[in-house]
Amino acid sequence: MSILITGIAGFVGVNLAQAMLDKGLRVCGVDNLSRGNLSNMEGLLSHPLFSFRQIDMTEPNALLDACKAFFVQEALTECWHLAANSDIPAGVSNPEVDLKDTFMTTHCLLDVMKQLGMKKLAFASSSAIYGDHGSTALVEHMGPLQPISNYGAMKLASEAAISAAAESFLDKAWIFRFPNVVGVPATHGVMLDFVRKLKQTPERLQVLGDGSQQKGYLHVEELVDAMLFIHDCATEKRAIYNIGADDKGVTVKFIAEETVRAARPNAHIEYGLGNRGWVGDVPRFVYSIEKLKQLGWFPKLNSAQAVQKALAQIVAQEQDN
Amino acid sequence: MSILITGIAGFVGVNLAQAMLDKGLRVCGVDNLSRGNLSNMEGLLSHPLFSFRQIDMTEPNALLDACKAFFVQEALTECWHLAANSDIPAGVSNPEVDLKDTFMTTHCLLDVMKQLGMKKLAFASSSAIYGDHGSTALVEHMGPLQPISNYGAMKLASEAAISAAAESFLDKAWIFRFPNVVGVPATHGVMLDFVRKLKQTPERLQVLGDGSQQKGYLHVEELVDAMLFIHDCATEKRAIYNIGADDKGVTVKFIAEETVRAARPNAHIEYGLGNRGWVGDVPRFVYSIEKLKQLGWFPKLNSAQAVQKALAQIVAQEQDN
Repeated sequence: MSILITGIAGFVGVNLAQAMLDKGLRVCGVDNLSRGNLSNMEGLLSHPLFSFRQIDMTEPNALLDACKAFFVQEALTECWHLAANSDIPAGVSNPEVDLKDTFMTTHCLLDVMKQLGMKKLAFASSSAIYGDHGSTALVEHMGPLQPISNYGAMKLASEAAISAAAESFLDKAWIFRFPNVVGVPATHGVMLDFVRKLKQTPERLQVLGDGSQQKGYLHVEELVDAMLFIHDCATEKRAIYNIGADDKGVTVKFIAEETVRAARPNAHIEYGLGNRGWVGDVPRFVYSIEKLKQLGWFPKLNSAQAVQKALAQIVAQEQDN
Repeated sequence: MSILITGIAGFVGVNLAQAMLDKGLRVCGVDNLSRGNLSNMEGLLSHPLFSFRQIDMTEPNALLDACKAFFVQEALTECWHLAANSDIPAGVSNPEVDLKDTFMTTHCLLDVMKQLGMKKLAFASSSAIYGDHGSTALVEHMGPLQPISNYGAMKLASEAAISAAAESFLDKAWIFRFPNVVGVPATHGVMLDFVRKLKQTPERLQVLGDGSQQKGYLHVEELVDAMLFIHDCATEKRAIYNIGADDKGVTVKFIAEETVRAARPNAHIEYGLGNRGWVGDVPRFVYSIEKLKQLGWFPKLNSAQAVQKALAQIVAQEQDN
């Protein structure tokens, strides 16, 4: 079986591809390499079951041509769509970013899948589609969905387009609503920021906001495991699942302290004001994974353990650079 | 105060514009006249407080230039965004239709509003954003939202983009989830179809499906009244309201029989098979307007009365043509 993965050079893409190759599947990946990069794929490019094409999938015929080239080897039956803008603040200041990279990638993919008769689609959605619901736990059957970032809005727009496609030509859609994911290869996020800041100014770590912002974190290895589990076990035609840690998360203060401990034990931490980092960021939310647990999947690490494991990996990654 | 209305030449647009002019507001309307048409606006074009420009608002600078021209008279403070594809089956067979006419109109509007400092937006969303929930009543706080048509998907995408804009630059967003609306000037829909079919073949009326499909119907005059009521009374920053009839609706069979009674009493009705007219149509749904009733608005007509009133108007409209 051949799987198409979009956004394959990104953080989640390379981890997912490796897991699929380990299962003996053929993996065909595309990426425009605007944020993902070739060095992330070092372990993949030499694998006999792996193919890669650098394309911008929103350009006319780019994805269609790439898929036809992949087809020469074996028919593509299923797509895992991860391509998206990953810089949320960039998308808040310029809505064109998420329109093109987060939504139009989905729109163009659906067009190609329809043309090629590909009927199964797994999609990386986001907890950002819910918006700010305060202390109410975010569950799959809640509404109204009121994203506060263009990233969240265009992920929801993508879910909507996929839902309509499931009525007209898709046989199956898996929609994974991602949590905050940590691990390597780290390309962005608060931990990488902190580690890099400490490299520049080893004596102090400046934190945006007062450090009280609290979120749950899942390690990318567990995320991939959960996605594959849902893929194999969920029976609904449109299978929508939150994936996340099974706790209330850890604060930015905890992450700052752990980063200092792992990288520069003598550094001083300086906090700013407020608990919202930037427009479009949800300051604190409770993420329910009850539906996923009912299906039979449980995370092995809690948020604190996921952060600690990822921090050790990120510190090592940055030492090598 | 000056109000911008997009899609003003459509069925709802002309009724809304007239109601606003009756309140003494200045109304600036745009429409690409692809489905709406000038004859719908006969009563408006001579009004001293009414301005109109024919533009395709998804073309670069078209809406910005139109708004700047309107600005010469008085600053635009608020927009009522009605422009959308209204031919749902057309959008199911070609996703580009709803992408451009239903979603990109919203995306481009938000860009212009941001540039011009317009901070209030009222949006015509749709019951189609919910998808098919069987006999479960559709309420504003339910999920998951799983539209089954590209029209519903791109209405949901628009809601999402507006929600994000309400975080970054809009002061207020009203989102009206429209029901099936009837009245004049009728431009599409089952009643107009029936009346026109009977004009062509006066002896019989052929019905798509078995006639068991049941929906609630609201008269457009009541829809406009409800929108203005919500606009004046709802306090949330993102005010999302279902608008609809307060009953379980009437069947296609009822509409067919009433049409025959109003237009051709001796015609024979012939039914087809199945209860779903076309891909993307939700065959039967229960629409909750409890939230709207809590706010203090109640429809005066039930679905049957709304259909009967509209039918008399549509028969008269078609006799004139």
